[in-house]
Amino acid sequence: MQHCDTLILPRWCVPIAHTGEVLEHHAVAISDGRITAVLPAAQAQARFQPSVLVERPAHVLIPGLINAHTHAAMTLFRGLADDLPLEAWLHEGIWPAERRWVSAEMVRDGTELAIAEMLRGGITCFSDQYFYPEIVAEAAVDMHMRATVATPVVEFATGWARDANEYFQKATDLVHDPYADHPLVTTAFAPHSTFAMSDESFAALRVLADQLDVRVQIHLHETAAEIEISLRDTGKRPFERLIDAGLVNRSLLAVHAVHMIEEEIAHFADAGVSIAHCPNSNLKLASGIADITRYREAGLNVALGTDGAASNNLLDLFSEMRTAALLAKAKANDASAITASEALHMATLSGAEALGLERSIGSIETGKLADLACVDLSSLNSQPVYDVVSQIVYAVRANQVADVWVGGRHQLDNGEFTHIDTDGVFARCNEWRERIATTGEIL
Amino acid sequence: MQHCDTLILPRWCVPIAHTGEVLEHHAVAISDGRITAVLPAAQAQARFQPSVLVERPAHVLIPGLINAHTHAAMTLFRGLADDLPLEAWLHEGIWPAERRWVSAEMVRDGTELAIAEMLRGGITCFSDQYFYPEIVAEAAVDMHMRATVATPVVEFATGWARDANEYFQKATDLVHDPYADHPLVTTAFAPHSTFAMSDESFAALRVLADQLDVRVQIHLHETAAEIEISLRDTGKRPFERLIDAGLVNRSLLAVHAVHMIEEEIAHFADAGVSIAHCPNSNLKLASGIADITRYREAGLNVALGTDGAASNNLLDLFSEMRTAALLAKAKANDASAITASEALHMATLSGAEALGLERSIGSIETGKLADLACVDLSSLNSQPVYDVVSQIVYAVRANQVADVWVGGRHQLDNGEFTHIDTDGVFARCNEWRERIATTGEIL
Repeated sequence: MQHCDTLILPRWCVPIAHTGEVLEHHAVAISDGRITAVLPAAQAQARFQPSVLVERPAHVLIPGLINAHTHAAMTLFRGLADDLPLEAWLHEGIWPAERRWVSAEMVRDGTELAIAEMLRGGITCFSDQYFYPEIVAEAAVDMHMRATVATPVVEFATGWARDANEYFQKATDLVHDPYADHPLVTTAFAPHSTFAMSDESFAALRVLADQLDVRVQIHLHETAAEIEISLRDTGKRPFERLIDAGLVNRSLLAVHAVHMIEEEIAHFADAGVSIAHCPNSNLKLASGIADITRYREAGLNVALGTDGAASNNLLDLFSEMRTAALLAKAKANDASAITASEALHMATLSGAEALGLERSIGSIETGKLADLACVDLSSLNSQPVYDVVSQIVYAVRANQVADVWVGGRHQLDNGEFTHIDTDGVFARCNEWRERIATTGEIL
Repeated sequence: MQHCDTLILPRWCVPIAHTGEVLEHHAVAISDGRITAVLPAAQAQARFQPSVLVERPAHVLIPGLINAHTHAAMTLFRGLADDLPLEAWLHEGIWPAERRWVSAEMVRDGTELAIAEMLRGGITCFSDQYFYPEIVAEAAVDMHMRATVATPVVEFATGWARDANEYFQKATDLVHDPYADHPLVTTAFAPHSTFAMSDESFAALRVLADQLDVRVQIHLHETAAEIEISLRDTGKRPFERLIDAGLVNRSLLAVHAVHMIEEEIAHFADAGVSIAHCPNSNLKLASGIADITRYREAGLNVALGTDGAASNNLLDLFSEMRTAALLAKAKANDASAITASEALHMATLSGAEALGLERSIGSIETGKLADLACVDLSSLNSQPVYDVVSQIVYAVRANQVADVWVGGRHQLDNGEFTHIDTDGVFARCNEWRERIATTGEIL
């Protein structure tokens, strides 16, 4: 008998590695944080002597979901400024709240709430853009969550940095140490948007990104107004400014990309750019509906993101999968557009590709990191089961996630957190709520 | 001290009776199946001696949600034929499955699964259109669920009836006895659609509906193709055929109504027609996006429906509220279109109006039936709480419903069913799954 740390015996397994493959009565073995075997359950039980055996007879095992775009700390602003026109939402709701409240302490507490929510819903890796990224990274490491921490770059002063130079310096510090080769955290640069960046800053960013071999993510073509304003102020579409800055390449993650003309889609596809599609946020802010069916046909890699909880209001990739698939059908006027299987791929392996992590995570394959989620299909709302993947995308709610492993660590065990002090998370969340709700300074 | 059957002490209460009203630390007293008082908690505890005291300190009490359109028994087909173009979905998926499997027994077992799912998610009343409506009504009564059971009328033979005359006869029988004045079940007529009805049958239906004072519901303008085919075959839009049939009045519930021109909206508004908006189903079948912001501006009553689980795939009004609000913002290109408060109204009092039950249910008011849902806001995904209604619509999942009362009966108590044998429901569901999945006759 061969030892392994953990042997998982789910009823079904969707490895994602091979399109459409659904395994029944298979086992997944984990040792030293990695997947060491995927094989029929009977063979596994004959071969392995596991330290921990996890039997899940009504469950489907999937790769941990990957949230390709969020602002984790903003969970503390969830529901603070809803149903406002976009300009009022920013100018009267979110920006004043950020100016008043964002601090290292707020980012720590908000990120912890976000990580707990994401883990509870089967997300094992998130890509974050927010101030105090060093705090986000610390929270991820302390809670044993995988993260791409993208350091923000804007031209204006915030509590975190005074000017573009200081943003660059802080970003460079974070990339170098201590996350140069970290088992959980990778770093990236996040120029906020083309309207927040001068040509000079873009030039400096490109040099740094090339030197340090760091990926870049940016909000792009989220609204029609963004494009109009760029044309008015610079004579160029935001897309063109990125081209001119030399940033359109395989390392680029374009967030939102709601409004794209055919030429831009083709150019992105040729360059190997990834898209972080955030359908619920795009609806809630009335930004528009991205034509992801077209993007995928053109060969673009489309990942899914929740965006921040101020514009969603959930950090829930089951909801994003469902909305992405349903909305794509309406947009394409074709009920067969974006199948359940494609939506699940977007939330897993496409997310890994968008973060440059596809060799490590995003599918259940021997040798990959053991980032896994096990989903209970025995609820009333997910019975009967004819098609496991259809249930995952169209019928499952995030609370049906029973188990989560991050790098082999069993973070959620049959619905219970094993290592995370949720009482503390709730207590700190409530302290912030009292402070934020009672000032009366916003809204 | 005054006796009452039940005294509920939630942290918050959203009565719906007055727009925007959110009560804190109030109590709701129930006796003999009706709400007998809504008053501050301290006063309630001084005044009432309840048989049962239900304290819910992290919860919000709302009216039970009203599902204005479903085909309950089709839960047994959930996920059977997804991601197909509409024509293939009908001709190769759903219709063959219905011809092969629909029977009194299937309708009973499927409806029980649906009722359990709906109650679990805070739905206390549903409007159903399906074959064997007498079985649907029996299941609702046996499970103590409120229902409007609409008897189908089509021109073709099914297992339930041979021709229009037999549909009419069976419909009339159901209306007369035993549901003429039933505490839980009301009846209605459900001509399937204009394409399923001849002018003669419409004429007969109108006479019957007037004689018996029964409301009518019909699938209308669900797809652009439906309108085109009607124009080709009859020279009239489906709307015009309904006008000619004399059915456009306050008793009409138009289901879907995705494609409506301005003149039709105005005519419906003048006539007092209600709409059953089913946003997730409309997306999934690529039917289009109804402009409900415009409908409501014009004065139409817009209720929410899940449609059947073969085209959704959930019977979940939290999901419908969220999708309705988000989608309306995209459709109207305005992030302030359909607020959370409006979405909650659509799922409660507007639903009651659509079924002609607004004097009995749909809001928390003294004298109304005690159809209530209590929602736990203490989950990670619904913290912090700044705006209770925003949380309900944008952040809550249906599993957060802790308690449900139907006509004062405590059906779900802190997440546990009190009267429903879910083991039996699951067992029968699984038997159907085995039969349906293994024939290989469909798909």
